[in-house]
Amino acid sequence: MSTPTSPATPAAPSADLPALREEYAALQARGLALDLTRGKPSAAQLDLAEPMLALPGLGVHRDPDGTDVRNYGGLAGLPGLRRIFAELLDVPAEQLLALGNASLTLMHDAMTYAHLWGVPGSQQPWGREDKITFVCPVPGYDRHFTVCEAFGVQMVTVPMTPDGPDAEAVADLVANDPSIKGMWVVPTYANPDGAVVSQAVARRLVSMPTAAPDFRIFWDNAYAVHHLTEHETTSADVLRLAAEAGNPDRPIMFASTSKISFAGAGVAFLAASPANIAWYTQHLSVQSIGPDKINQLRHLMFFRDAEGVRAHMRKHREILAPKFAAVDRVLTRRLGDRGVATWTRPQGGYFVSLDVVPGTASRVVELAAGAGIALTPAGATFPYGRDPQGSNIRLAPSMPPLAEVEEAMDAVATCVLLAAAEAAA
Amino acid sequence: MSTPTSPATPAAPSADLPALREEYAALQARGLALDLTRGKPSAAQLDLAEPMLALPGLGVHRDPDGTDVRNYGGLAGLPGLRRIFAELLDVPAEQLLALGNASLTLMHDAMTYAHLWGVPGSQQPWGREDKITFVCPVPGYDRHFTVCEAFGVQMVTVPMTPDGPDAEAVADLVANDPSIKGMWVVPTYANPDGAVVSQAVARRLVSMPTAAPDFRIFWDNAYAVHHLTEHETTSADVLRLAAEAGNPDRPIMFASTSKISFAGAGVAFLAASPANIAWYTQHLSVQSIGPDKINQLRHLMFFRDAEGVRAHMRKHREILAPKFAAVDRVLTRRLGDRGVATWTRPQGGYFVSLDVVPGTASRVVELAAGAGIALTPAGATFPYGRDPQGSNIRLAPSMPPLAEVEEAMDAVATCVLLAAAEAAA
Repeated sequence: MSTPTSPATPAAPSADLPALREEYAALQARGLALDLTRGKPSAAQLDLAEPMLALPGLGVHRDPDGTDVRNYGGLAGLPGLRRIFAELLDVPAEQLLALGNASLTLMHDAMTYAHLWGVPGSQQPWGREDKITFVCPVPGYDRHFTVCEAFGVQMVTVPMTPDGPDAEAVADLVANDPSIKGMWVVPTYANPDGAVVSQAVARRLVSMPTAAPDFRIFWDNAYAVHHLTEHETTSADVLRLAAEAGNPDRPIMFASTSKISFAGAGVAFLAASPANIAWYTQHLSVQSIGPDKINQLRHLMFFRDAEGVRAHMRKHREILAPKFAAVDRVLTRRLGDRGVATWTRPQGGYFVSLDVVPGTASRVVELAAGAGIALTPAGATFPYGRDPQGSNIRLAPSMPPLAEVEEAMDAVATCVLLAAAEAAA
Repeated sequence: MSTPTSPATPAAPSADLPALREEYAALQARGLALDLTRGKPSAAQLDLAEPMLALPGLGVHRDPDGTDVRNYGGLAGLPGLRRIFAELLDVPAEQLLALGNASLTLMHDAMTYAHLWGVPGSQQPWGREDKITFVCPVPGYDRHFTVCEAFGVQMVTVPMTPDGPDAEAVADLVANDPSIKGMWVVPTYANPDGAVVSQAVARRLVSMPTAAPDFRIFWDNAYAVHHLTEHETTSADVLRLAAEAGNPDRPIMFASTSKISFAGAGVAFLAASPANIAWYTQHLSVQSIGPDKINQLRHLMFFRDAEGVRAHMRKHREILAPKFAAVDRVLTRRLGDRGVATWTRPQGGYFVSLDVVPGTASRVVELAAGAGIALTPAGATFPYGRDPQGSNIRLAPSMPPLAEVEEAMDAVATCVLLAAAEAAA
């Protein structure tokens, strides 16, 4: 579970302004060039999967079932790799597809199929409806919002809690509005606030009555095994809960190895009910003859089994945890007693969610840019880029080396303080 | 250019029927299990790219431009690989995208984007039109037809000629019907008849007036470098011709290395005008953060340059040409003077197009299946699976070993003769 610090109290007195301006000028003079914008693995993390660069190896082109992975076919992906990730994602292997290099593509394509042809239970293709709405827990993942915008899907927001989306708020929305066809959830170590959906919240989301008969939860389990502590949390078993609730087709789970093996050359997964898998596969069969099975064999050979993945993720943790600790250490030292910011202490995933004095987030990002620190644009964690409080900033400390993370956070703290002082002036 | 044999004359006399039934029974008794259904490379062909199975190799993860190919990004693909295939496809490298493992996916996605959002020049998304029609040269590629069917795109047919689609027939159709938004073309060694679009036909197709302002040619250059003889034909330079004709946005070219490197693990390409590339990239950016750049580096390292690809394709030819020669040899021996079939002698590509006595194609396929020979279903080379003559059968001799190709063709010849005799009875 994510642990936010205590909420922000009024901003630093504007009396600090001259000193902070001086401090900021000194920061600018250092000519930094640091990037905390995206959740990209560092080179050191990518090096962990180095042996894969020479796999499957000369003369190796059959999977354990005897399939020649070089040729066409195998639309659902290699059975051996599906079994590994079925165990990790807690879903039946026969309900899990192993596909291309990006779960974003699978989410986009699921939205495409729904718009053009509807989903099981649809009365007509979503694209023929006057209006389609998705519920977006905020803060959330900007690429989810971009997919909605591209399809003209309206977005309504609900707050995140440490246990996931505010399920009662979601239930209220979906009960009476048949235009609400779906919602986004990042169930494990959410982007950006690190929340983990509890079993109770998951059960509520798959059980609540929905006005739309074809409501879908896009369950983006991007960080299922991406722990930052020894406590390796378990994701809610959403497919089972949904089946028990009599709504087996409601969740569609997405995942990938992008932050396990290689960010650009991993394997993406889709898990869902048998009816949803049949639906997705039917449309996929028009679009593809099969995924890159050689890359899937490469992953199968390297990881061997689910425990191989878990052990690998502990090596990622060794690299990532000190960076997240540095973020918290520097922010606590610089901002801990100033009442100008709160932030999360995530137990996994790739982000820290920083809330600054309301109305100053854009100014903080602007000041940081002026000092050579690239941050995710303010508002990016909200639909249409509009953060009603103007306070949320997503920090992505994975990519830079540890020393740079510390340097960047120290600079960000200066920007937070200066923006707060400016606002109070 | 494809060279069909002389057209079929009346079927074999039904007097042959008892002898042919006996021959067929003997064939069945042999218990064959041969598959000529799909254009799949054989294991021997896949072995040609064996070194790629160990590439890029330990410690190698940067392309010549210094990009870490393991991480996210690079939506357009690796510049080095784009340069190689730009030369081979005769297009500017900046107008060529190197993407995932299947050109079918790119064709499907181009159709998706057009339906949901329109193409440059569209007055509205294609999906909002009452009716959308594509021109389909026949015989043609069944997966093209399947894409149209999935999107509810009506199909009208035009005949293929040895120089490509009957351009005058196409021009007549598109001049007055604004519902005709596009057409399929396999310009080089067409599937299934091996025709090569001449420069004159290409010029006509990109120059002809179209009632639809947003008409597109889906130019599926799947076999651009897949020669079966020493005469390595040059594809029409369709992008240049279209620009010269003042219709730069009309063609969208697709290609892949599926039948160059590995059928399931190649790299697919899309080439088009700057406006089309901007359009495709804009929508792709919602769907993907970038293609598998490690696999692109693998291809770059293995082929090195365009000449590397050409040299590699000559090795494919050494394996494939004898199989195509065997098809012609056996068919000529068994059917050459019987007046029951014609077939193509392609100079490249993956198929032989066989025309049997009108009305008997289904029966030939059925008889073949009864003798353990899997053929592409009769009608597959026509939209909706409906061959008006009931005569066309696509033969795919690439996958089985040479001896099996000979065996299969001998069996097919028996089925052709028996079906013809049955029809005449």
